[in-house]
Amino acid sequence: MSSAPTTALKRRHDAVRDALASHRADALVVTSLPNVLYLTNFTGSTAIVVLTADALHFLTDSRYVTVVEETRGTPHECPAMELVTVEGSYDAKLVEVLTGHGWTRVAFEAADLSVSRHTWLAGKLAGAGGSAVDLIPTEGLVERPRLVKDEFEIATLREAARRLSRVAEQVPGEVRRGRTEREIAMAIDWRLRDAGFARTAFDTIVAGGPNSALPHARPGERKLTEGDLVVLDFGGVYDSYCVDLTRTVSVGLAAPRAREVYEAVREAHNRAIQVVAPGRSRFEIDAAARDTLDRHGLGAAFGHGTGHGLGIEVHEGPRITRRRPDVDTGDEAVQAGMVFTIEPGAYLPGWGGVRIEDDVLVTGSGVEVLTDAPTDLIEI
Amino acid sequence: MSSAPTTALKRRHDAVRDALASHRADALVVTSLPNVLYLTNFTGSTAIVVLTADALHFLTDSRYVTVVEETRGTPHECPAMELVTVEGSYDAKLVEVLTGHGWTRVAFEAADLSVSRHTWLAGKLAGAGGSAVDLIPTEGLVERPRLVKDEFEIATLREAARRLSRVAEQVPGEVRRGRTEREIAMAIDWRLRDAGFARTAFDTIVAGGPNSALPHARPGERKLTEGDLVVLDFGGVYDSYCVDLTRTVSVGLAAPRAREVYEAVREAHNRAIQVVAPGRSRFEIDAAARDTLDRHGLGAAFGHGTGHGLGIEVHEGPRITRRRPDVDTGDEAVQAGMVFTIEPGAYLPGWGGVRIEDDVLVTGSGVEVLTDAPTDLIEI
Repeated sequence: MSSAPTTALKRRHDAVRDALASHRADALVVTSLPNVLYLTNFTGSTAIVVLTADALHFLTDSRYVTVVEETRGTPHECPAMELVTVEGSYDAKLVEVLTGHGWTRVAFEAADLSVSRHTWLAGKLAGAGGSAVDLIPTEGLVERPRLVKDEFEIATLREAARRLSRVAEQVPGEVRRGRTEREIAMAIDWRLRDAGFARTAFDTIVAGGPNSALPHARPGERKLTEGDLVVLDFGGVYDSYCVDLTRTVSVGLAAPRAREVYEAVREAHNRAIQVVAPGRSRFEIDAAARDTLDRHGLGAAFGHGTGHGLGIEVHEGPRITRRRPDVDTGDEAVQAGMVFTIEPGAYLPGWGGVRIEDDVLVTGSGVEVLTDAPTDLIEI
Repeated sequence: MSSAPTTALKRRHDAVRDALASHRADALVVTSLPNVLYLTNFTGSTAIVVLTADALHFLTDSRYVTVVEETRGTPHECPAMELVTVEGSYDAKLVEVLTGHGWTRVAFEAADLSVSRHTWLAGKLAGAGGSAVDLIPTEGLVERPRLVKDEFEIATLREAARRLSRVAEQVPGEVRRGRTEREIAMAIDWRLRDAGFARTAFDTIVAGGPNSALPHARPGERKLTEGDLVVLDFGGVYDSYCVDLTRTVSVGLAAPRAREVYEAVREAHNRAIQVVAPGRSRFEIDAAARDTLDRHGLGAAFGHGTGHGLGIEVHEGPRITRRRPDVDTGDEAVQAGMVFTIEPGAYLPGWGGVRIEDDVLVTGSGVEVLTDAPTDLIEI
């Protein structure tokens, strides 16, 4: 297992520190676990980070202390880390740390911290012996640097996508008449693990026949039969980074309508990828897929977004979607170093559906498709 | 796949409605996904429930609408459900629902809703054309009924535990000298799926030799060798309910010290189970395990709690832990219908560790151990 080098962690800390300075805050409390991992390489289930201008206070409990201590002195150690062992309540220990340093303005992650925890912390910090600590709501201080992957992250995602593509090439061999969706999903999950993934990135989707019209179907006991379209959507976590891929195959020769829908989705997928380049708006990339399906009379059959960012989370920024007038302002250009899926689909209730998904990296000059399994319609 | 009958859903709604009435609230916004599942049988990834005295408004998007519609008229349909299809922002649609019914007091789940979402919603609801909607923070309105499992849940957990016990009996056969932790974890995960589990309930732990001293070790490339203690901790999700089991085996004959530690942990495990009965405090159950290990000089080697509740989440209430004076008030007796793990352990850094875990149900008169795989030390 590999993890980010100390130099990368240092750059990440410094990116967050710049944002922290702009909020005139003494510290940032990081409660979002993917953000904790990004800043420290910690892969356990419970920890809090308090990042300041010159240190990273790392709160965790006895289950993880040994693992964290063992990273000291390695090329992957977290720089300027002060380890704080929690016995009992994490938030009580957090209050101790926050009140023990003379800080007055402490930023927190408003999109992660619950109203309950915030209310409790604010109460404790206001009553902390005269010198109150103000809690400053912030958003995206760690998520923003995470949008643009660094060298270690790109290498990891590239390797993960390479491994996922090899799995994708084996997957059609698992699709057989009479086999259930569930059996095929199990076989895919085994192949993912065998290819070096620590776990699946989400519950594998195998949806055959009418089920393929449900974008998020669960694999069931239905047996595949002649003429089925089968949507196969799977992903894995490799060195803490997520990749995600979908192919749709036909059991037997595809009927003319199935081939038509397949080729329309494939064209939408290709066109969206062609649009990807630094400076292009994420809405424009979505429109490239959506307009193509519209032209084929399948606009209404494509209900979801064209893609989502990949990284420590399987769904993160940037979202490649339609512009929502109530929420989205600005043109939100994609930048070199961003990694996301392109996954248009068309779903016709009662009939079936098609989705084709690959993972792309925005490069300095255009796009690199990280997953490279063929997209030709396979008839089994 | 089975799911809760309509009658059970109705009783769950009514339990939450009683709590809602005591808050004098017109509606409860349920954003916690396990709580949404509990109230509706919905197993997708995105939805919001708004429960009122006579209806359940169910907000979801195009990915799930067909699946939800298909439950109508079945014995598992959600009673009094009003389906609201979301296109675009969930929270914008939620504001529409909340302002469209003349409600003035709307409760929300303060432990789930983030500060960001709360701030945004409160802003929109205050400005909603004169008749403002007040947001009332609440905690545990759905979690409290979830603590005591109903008939459907107990049947599901009993069946899940039975299947997990059969997997547990196969697992020692997967442990061999020279095999890596990772290979054994893959084999366990395969057996879980083969036994009918939809997925693992958490990342399977296989920790051999010195790694067994890390309660939350990740399976790595270390090959098992003579004299290793191997902690095997695994669980599965069956019909949306989680079960969890740990056994520790010895590769070859156990050294006297290994057997000593094993028998101390086993005694702690047995004693804690003997204490379980309706009306006993959760701290008392923890103390039964902890005091036993203390007597064997292993108190300091047991850093975590004795158990956690099982249900839709793999970690839920009740927590079987030491009393934390800063947080825990009252004696918090366990009740008939509660299901939780009993999992004491002893971890000696550099040497190794032992954990033994079973799942128990509090019955009317005492305890039923749901997982029934033997706990004798197996030497491989």
